[in-house]
Amino acid sequence: MTISIVGLGLIGGSFAKDLRKAGLARTLLGVEAAPAHAARALQLGLVDRAVTLDEALRESDVILLAVPVNALKELLPQILDAVRPAQTVIDLGSTKHQLAEAVRNHPSRERYVAAHPMAGTENAGPDAALEGLFRDKTVLLCDLEWSAPDACKTALEIFHAVGLKFEFMTSDQHDRHAAYVSHLSHVVAYALSLAVQTEEKAGYAVPRLAGGGFTSTVRLAKSAPEMWVPIFRQNREHVLQAIDAFAERLHVLRECIAADDGPQLDALIREANQIRNLL
Amino acid sequence: MTISIVGLGLIGGSFAKDLRKAGLARTLLGVEAAPAHAARALQLGLVDRAVTLDEALRESDVILLAVPVNALKELLPQILDAVRPAQTVIDLGSTKHQLAEAVRNHPSRERYVAAHPMAGTENAGPDAALEGLFRDKTVLLCDLEWSAPDACKTALEIFHAVGLKFEFMTSDQHDRHAAYVSHLSHVVAYALSLAVQTEEKAGYAVPRLAGGGFTSTVRLAKSAPEMWVPIFRQNREHVLQAIDAFAERLHVLRECIAADDGPQLDALIREANQIRNLL
Repeated sequence: MTISIVGLGLIGGSFAKDLRKAGLARTLLGVEAAPAHAARALQLGLVDRAVTLDEALRESDVILLAVPVNALKELLPQILDAVRPAQTVIDLGSTKHQLAEAVRNHPSRERYVAAHPMAGTENAGPDAALEGLFRDKTVLLCDLEWSAPDACKTALEIFHAVGLKFEFMTSDQHDRHAAYVSHLSHVVAYALSLAVQTEEKAGYAVPRLAGGGFTSTVRLAKSAPEMWVPIFRQNREHVLQAIDAFAERLHVLRECIAADDGPQLDALIREANQIRNLL
Repeated sequence: MTISIVGLGLIGGSFAKDLRKAGLARTLLGVEAAPAHAARALQLGLVDRAVTLDEALRESDVILLAVPVNALKELLPQILDAVRPAQTVIDLGSTKHQLAEAVRNHPSRERYVAAHPMAGTENAGPDAALEGLFRDKTVLLCDLEWSAPDACKTALEIFHAVGLKFEFMTSDQHDRHAAYVSHLSHVVAYALSLAVQTEEKAGYAVPRLAGGGFTSTVRLAKSAPEMWVPIFRQNREHVLQAIDAFAERLHVLRECIAADDGPQLDALIREANQIRNLL
């Protein structure tokens, strides 16, 4: 089949690499708004040709949308306006509810499959594309009852080809889940980075002297605003709820330390340790 | 030379592996209070013999202390009471000021070198010992003007042998620095784990469906209370200051999201991204 990937950054580029390797696509087309990224993607051999969105819609069996979630909300209704009954459109965005609402009553809604592969890195652009990024990770498939069976089958085939396991939920469930296990981690890492940088400028903390622990905790703070501002805005209510729940637990830990309450601190840390059994 | 390692967990065990490989120690002795850990350390070949602290003090040129910081505060003065002029005592603890105060006026203070290798993992015990853990990491050496030159030289030789780079600071500078680039990361990871677990119990968040980002941010939440409660208690003032600075930046991010202030959120994330240049 012919697969078009719209957006040749970390996620789109990684799909291109793995789909090429899996031999699933006879032809891989790329749609990329940034000319420098399009050129680089061709140079890296991620896709066979760079095409316009119109060309992609004419030539493709499958259109994978790997653009930031604000662009998705604009793009998806337009694409469904032009989609043909034999085509499948799959988005790979990190929020789902607003997108679901945007196309809920679209006459071609059933050609669309809502998906969120839970995999990524802190890097962006075609050079961030990583072979095997999705291997043994999970793709969350949302509201599948609104997608045509053949479109679902095509999506599962593609995700299986890159090594993703499947989970099914509604777009609302997705957004609450993702707020906690993905979006909150980013807010926390950004706050950690900002706090440590202030202390670094004051001449105290020296991040380059940190061990692997700080590096690991702050890693997501390198993630680009072009991707994350739209995610926080689209998933605002759940993200705020997650931040507040986190801040409350942080405050409890803080008060234990302030009160020098060893036994309570010990109990909280033992509870926190249980995350070992949930990962 | 004969080197004794007191505490055969992650840090002590990793030193044993690397010192053995470097060929620096003719004999490696281990002092371990937990019988099961002592037996396991011998089984793993981490040390040549398990001995008592008294035996270690009689037979060793160097005594490396790799026990939790509350135990260090008890142990170090006792060891300095018995130390001979040709021996060197090095601690590897994560806090420095209280320990420095505990031995400041000890007649054998100059036989002691205060050190904190900025390396570790979230695991504990002899099985957590990792070859190469310290390679290209940094050891913070504190208050070296209070240590005898030959003791400093011995400590540098040992740290060089396991691949550590050196930085020098006072114990006060150390504790403020460590609060931000190490201790804060642990508090944040514990709070993240607790918040996500509450949401998991409520049936919403599913940690095992997370991508690498959450796993990376929450990793330190697996760290043991035996090590971390004493660190937070000994470095309380700096840790509280770091938590408050972090909570303030978290609150600013939260308010931007609540106000749907895209441009300000974009600016904050760009600032947070700068951590790339500091690691």
